[in-house]
Amino acid sequence: MIFLSRKEHFNAAHKLYNPSWTEEKNKEVFGPCANPNGHGHNYELIVTLCGTPDPDTGFIFDLKKLSTLIREKVIEKVDHKNLNMDVDFMQGKMASTEVLAYEIFNILKKEIELQCSNAELYKITLYETPRNFVEVIREK
Amino acid sequence: MIFLSRKEHFNAAHKLYNPSWTEEKNKEVFGPCANPNGHGHNYELIVTLCGTPDPDTGFIFDLKKLSTLIREKVIEKVDHKNLNMDVDFMQGKMASTEVLAYEIFNILKKEIELQCSNAELYKITLYETPRNFVEVIREK
Amino acid sequence: MIFLSRKEHFNAAHKLYNPSWTEEKNKEVFGPCANPNGHGHNYELIVTLCGTPDPDTGFIFDLKKLSTLIREKVIEKVDHKNLNMDVDFMQGKMASTEVLAYEIFNILKKEIELQCSNAELYKITLYETPRNFVEVIREK
Amino acid sequence: MIFLSRKEHFNAAHKLYNPSWTEEKNKEVFGPCANPNGHGHNYELIVTLCGTPDPDTGFIFDLKKLSTLIREKVIEKVDHKNLNMDVDFMQGKMASTEVLAYEIFNILKKEIELQCSNAELYKITLYETPRNFVEVIREK
Amino acid sequence: MIFLSRKEHFNAAHKLYNPSWTEEKNKEVFGPCANPNGHGHNYELIVTLCGTPDPDTGFIFDLKKLSTLIREKVIEKVDHKNLNMDVDFMQGKMASTEVLAYEIFNILKKEIELQCSNAELYKITLYETPRNFVEVIREK
Amino acid sequence: MIFLSRKEHFNAAHKLYNPSWTEEKNKEVFGPCANPNGHGHNYELIVTLCGTPDPDTGFIFDLKKLSTLIREKVIEKVDHKNLNMDVDFMQGKMASTEVLAYEIFNILKKEIELQCSNAELYKITLYETPRNFVEVIREK
Repeated sequence: MIFLSRKEHFNAAHKLYNPSWTEEKNKEVFGPCANPNGHGHNYELIVTLCGTPDPDTGFIFDLKKLSTLIREKVIEKVDHKNLNMDVDFMQGKMASTEVLAYEIFNILKKEIELQCSNAELYKITLYETPRNFVEVIREK
Repeated sequence: MIFLSRKEHFNAAHKLYNPSWTEEKNKEVFGPCANPNGHGHNYELIVTLCGTPDPDTGFIFDLKKLSTLIREKVIEKVDHKNLNMDVDFMQGKMASTEVLAYEIFNILKKEIELQCSNAELYKITLYETPRNFVEVIREK
Repeated sequence: MIFLSRKEHFNAAHKLYNPSWTEEKNKEVFGPCANPNGHGHNYELIVTLCGTPDPDTGFIFDLKKLSTLIREKVIEKVDHKNLNMDVDFMQGKMASTEVLAYEIFNILKKEIELQCSNAELYKITLYETPRNFVEVIREK
Repeated sequence: MIFLSRKEHFNAAHKLYNPSWTEEKNKEVFGPCANPNGHGHNYELIVTLCGTPDPDTGFIFDLKKLSTLIREKVIEKVDHKNLNMDVDFMQGKMASTEVLAYEIFNILKKEIELQCSNAELYKITLYETPRNFVEVIREK
Repeated sequence: MIFLSRKEHFNAAHKLYNPSWTEEKNKEVFGPCANPNGHGHNYELIVTLCGTPDPDTGFIFDLKKLSTLIREKVIEKVDHKNLNMDVDFMQGKMASTEVLAYEIFNILKKEIELQCSNAELYKITLYETPRNFVEVIREK
Repeated sequence: MIFLSRKEHFNAAHKLYNPSWTEEKNKEVFGPCANPNGHGHNYELIVTLCGTPDPDTGFIFDLKKLSTLIREKVIEKVDHKNLNMDVDFMQGKMASTEVLAYEIFNILKKEIELQCSNAELYKITLYETPRNFVEVIREK
């Protein structure tokens, strides 16, 4: 089994805020992350496919196509956006790295199934900062 | 001449928006950076002093004190904040990296003059992303 | 399954030295790593939990709490220390990255079991240098 | 189970070119990567062993020996070389990162079986650029 | 004085070879860098302007325009190319990092003078590898 | 003026300790850095020359020779050593990054004057950690 990964990035604002809680409870649980006017990050997104190289190209999947797919289906929706206010697939959800990564995984899983015959999505890794990151791995 | 540098970081939201312009002109000039709900970055701030090492300590300046000074005078004011809305020293100014770096330089210059006898602020470097950064160097 | 990681760091001295061997055998096996007065590293420690996000917070585990836990239980015991001489949980053990990582894994495993209901320790990664690192993964 | 990794690097030229295709088809499929005179990369190679630390040394495998083994068996054959023209184990194969990683995995697997009793090759990771990389993991 | 920098990258093949020397002398002076079929690198290029921020935008220069300018005038000519064979401005010159950086500096200097009123080119930094790099700074 | 840089690294133990002070004063001024048994770092050393490229080679200085010179004159004396106890040129001096960088600058300055006709030492940069570093620049 061989794994192929591509790294992309986006810049977004967010806040951690549970609307069913009081302002005080949000501040208590999320601390400065609950700042009403938000803060932001340079997110790094690594998308990992697994599969078998095509004998004609040596490719599991064309990296230019993978980059285009990630940009069209994910980056364009979140880059230079406010994750709480501007992103359709995050509506009504907590804007934590865990939830954001899980949603991105599901979007990419469907697209890669449609576009790719000899590979499938194995994992995404989402860095919120160089010190905080989340991985979502497919169920076997 | 010897130079001593300390790197700190902060996470902030901002947008590029000139309030004396129309929404259309802002969009035209700043593109996605003018998104009304903002976006954000993991900023990296490097503060560089120049001076002569103290013979008793071997230090130009104590790095723990420098870190504390940077955190108290700069990081606490911008970390997990919206640069356009929450930061006093950015009120009425464009939230570009150039302007933000210039304001941070002036804040730190004064503090280091007060606290330090054998060194002075030489430069600050502010990374907005790993690919975009600004330096402000003191006039000779 | 979702994985959440936090990176911390510490600076420590160590030497590789087996006290049941002669000085010559230590030098032969460990080379410059056996230097009697020691050498040192900037260690990077990545702690990875797996679990399910809490629906109220979107968190597998609060990263500030995870950071505090790692600092109190591990970093304070090893940072600015000599691993062979100052660290209780390394007494009588080889100060290799493999052994150090294994001991840190066991300390963190217990603490995370105590403090966390919807996640558990999955892996630790310990960088001795940017080119040498060790991972310890839980048994299934 | 404990995993030990060592990172090495090499600089090589290559092109993506299928000799059974026309120049036009190569250009269409591989784009600028099919440039007849080639282009190149700073490749980063991470080799990961798994095993049990030796009680006398605390080592899964001696990292200096692992570094020497990787250099002698892989780096010397590809560093400052043209992967399409100068490398025996790539003759007649596509010079994609997937294929190169797979060949390097097989070379190292044999060598580590010969030289190492308490560890075996688990994975190699090959970075073509900081944004494109391939992993080959052993079958269980 | 404020400095604004933008980082771009390109992947290219090259060899170090003086055509007025024998093959033996080239091998003696340049070692593996003289390999006839070439090798290659992931080059990183940092372009630094100095100037005064425009009061309406807060910008020394628009980073999107700077990125486009660097790509059109430099990256498109060298990316996925062989520096010895495919690049017009390197014809008849040694493909060392020093010479390449000097030529890129001169190309960008002219363009930035044409396109920019309140800033000028101060420096370029060209990384051949993470450990080898060259800077060209303007004469005062 | 063109600048050529080479990065090397070494791993060393040290402590910050002024022998003319009491243990208490050392602890008060240097905190955990005064731990009697020491701690350590992965130091990164960047050596920057300035000069004019040789027309025959395109080189300011041969990077392999520069690497060898740095290793023989500096790295071999400090790598896998205790800076306070094992390094001749640090005897009787504070083992701060400032002092260490200054001593390394002076050693390299002499050697490069001897070995190099068309370049001279311009600067050294010494990283103690990724967040703390010192530069020494030649007087004009």
